[in-house]
Amino acid sequence: MPPASNSSEEWFGERERVGLEQRIQVRGVLYEGRSDYQTIRVLDTVPFGRALILDTALQTTETDEFIYHEMMVHPALISLAQPERVLIVGGGDGGCLRRALQHPLLEAVHVELDRAVVETCRRYLPQVSGGAFDDPRVRLLFADGYEFVEKAQEPFDAIIVDLTDPLPSSPSLRLFTAEFYQAVRRILKKEGLMVTQSSSPLLLTHDLLMIYANLKAVFPLVRVCLAPVPSYPGVLWSFTLASVGNDPLALDEATVRQRLEARGISPRYYSPQMHLASFALPPFLAGLLAEPEHFQDLKATHPVAQ
Amino acid sequence: MPPASNSSEEWFGERERVGLEQRIQVRGVLYEGRSDYQTIRVLDTVPFGRALILDTALQTTETDEFIYHEMMVHPALISLAQPERVLIVGGGDGGCLRRALQHPLLEAVHVELDRAVVETCRRYLPQVSGGAFDDPRVRLLFADGYEFVEKAQEPFDAIIVDLTDPLPSSPSLRLFTAEFYQAVRRILKKEGLMVTQSSSPLLLTHDLLMIYANLKAVFPLVRVCLAPVPSYPGVLWSFTLASVGNDPLALDEATVRQRLEARGISPRYYSPQMHLASFALPPFLAGLLAEPEHFQDLKATHPVAQ
Repeated sequence: MPPASNSSEEWFGERERVGLEQRIQVRGVLYEGRSDYQTIRVLDTVPFGRALILDTALQTTETDEFIYHEMMVHPALISLAQPERVLIVGGGDGGCLRRALQHPLLEAVHVELDRAVVETCRRYLPQVSGGAFDDPRVRLLFADGYEFVEKAQEPFDAIIVDLTDPLPSSPSLRLFTAEFYQAVRRILKKEGLMVTQSSSPLLLTHDLLMIYANLKAVFPLVRVCLAPVPSYPGVLWSFTLASVGNDPLALDEATVRQRLEARGISPRYYSPQMHLASFALPPFLAGLLAEPEHFQDLKATHPVAQ
Repeated sequence: MPPASNSSEEWFGERERVGLEQRIQVRGVLYEGRSDYQTIRVLDTVPFGRALILDTALQTTETDEFIYHEMMVHPALISLAQPERVLIVGGGDGGCLRRALQHPLLEAVHVELDRAVVETCRRYLPQVSGGAFDDPRVRLLFADGYEFVEKAQEPFDAIIVDLTDPLPSSPSLRLFTAEFYQAVRRILKKEGLMVTQSSSPLLLTHDLLMIYANLKAVFPLVRVCLAPVPSYPGVLWSFTLASVGNDPLALDEATVRQRLEARGISPRYYSPQMHLASFALPPFLAGLLAEPEHFQDLKATHPVAQ
């Protein structure tokens, strides 16, 4: 991994499918390489500090990763009175792993397809994982997440699915299917929860609706929560939790507060109040989830079309 | 107002102060002109349909205006058991006026500086005001909002301040000062509320902190709520409500629901659940509002800097 040049890019842009682009000014390229699965870049950006880019999509940045990773992990793990075993699929930057280990786990199994992502992030974005990869409770495997889940035998309290977006060309796509969620359900304890990032509810609504429908086909209880991630196109992001019965909305603020305090966790985005507020959905979005047939494809219309 | 050409622009971009730009693909220019106060453009955009641009800043679009305008109006007016007289300062597109008139008002006084904005919006963005300018309860004045508030005698139940951003060069800047808020307080009824848009909490945090501090210097009760407006840079937007005692957070969901139903209002973004959820602030932002001296200027650092 040689240090890369300092001059090749001035702005990094992501063009979503609806004529909208977020451009981020770049100070320099810290790393650029190609693994067996994707191109990997670490950029030093003006607004967000260091950023990880896989192929053409920004994955995480050092300044706003806390919002995404706290929301991927804490709503699910706080919903468990005693989480012991957690599985993380994807999430090679270690941000989910770090937040999961703040809970009193006995073991965190981390299955990442691409060893080069973990190596790059440990070297160039160490603050995202914050030493989590060195925690003795971690079992890190470089393997296909789909195959791991299919073959796994021991059950988990929580399964955190932190993947690149479900583009048609992506190896992640299979891990957004009902078949995968069926395999997840098989290795989830009775009180367990799974969570997946579920894309931009405003710009990529069809992705969220697809993920939601696939989860509903498998799990009796599916809940969507929202949070802003400033470096992502569209900013507002969705996270979908699923279980056979454990309902994150059954918690009151006092229980969330008591569990955070007992575990010594002081998040910067997530809080007892935010736990409940994040699951509140505006009527236009709740309506689409209830009646997705009313959704008009964004490619043809508008992100918040009537 | 001659019809403008169809070819002059392909993308419209706003560069915020931190190396971040949101670019919006443009199909055509529907109107372009210069008033006594500013340049006015109406663009037909790919992601958001028709958009109003004043000078260099996007003000509203036909597809996501409902989020901004519902949040400017409904949290404040639902907090009033019987709103009768409302003052709107700015808001020349008519979006706030339209939502205010959904409540059982006797009178809405609308004071807009720039007659050309109202004329342009009525012609090119009629769906934003939805006929509100023709409502017999409306008294529309083209005047300086600061001077109007200073001289006004009759008190209002709610005062909605819908302005362009507080840039140093903007005529709006005076209407974000403690002096203006003092004048507003003088013409607010005892149970009354005022609300102002208060900028991007992530990208322009210093604007929100300035507005919040100026309101706190005048009003005993100040509350910030958040909502995503996809066409705005940074997407997440803030709205700040102030009063001498009427607290929007004192309402429970049942009261909000009962008032919405009694008034026959079915918003697309706002709801009883969203009323309370929108006022939940992540700890990092609540902390900045409580101790703004810990804020590091965005020009030098990151929008979500530690």
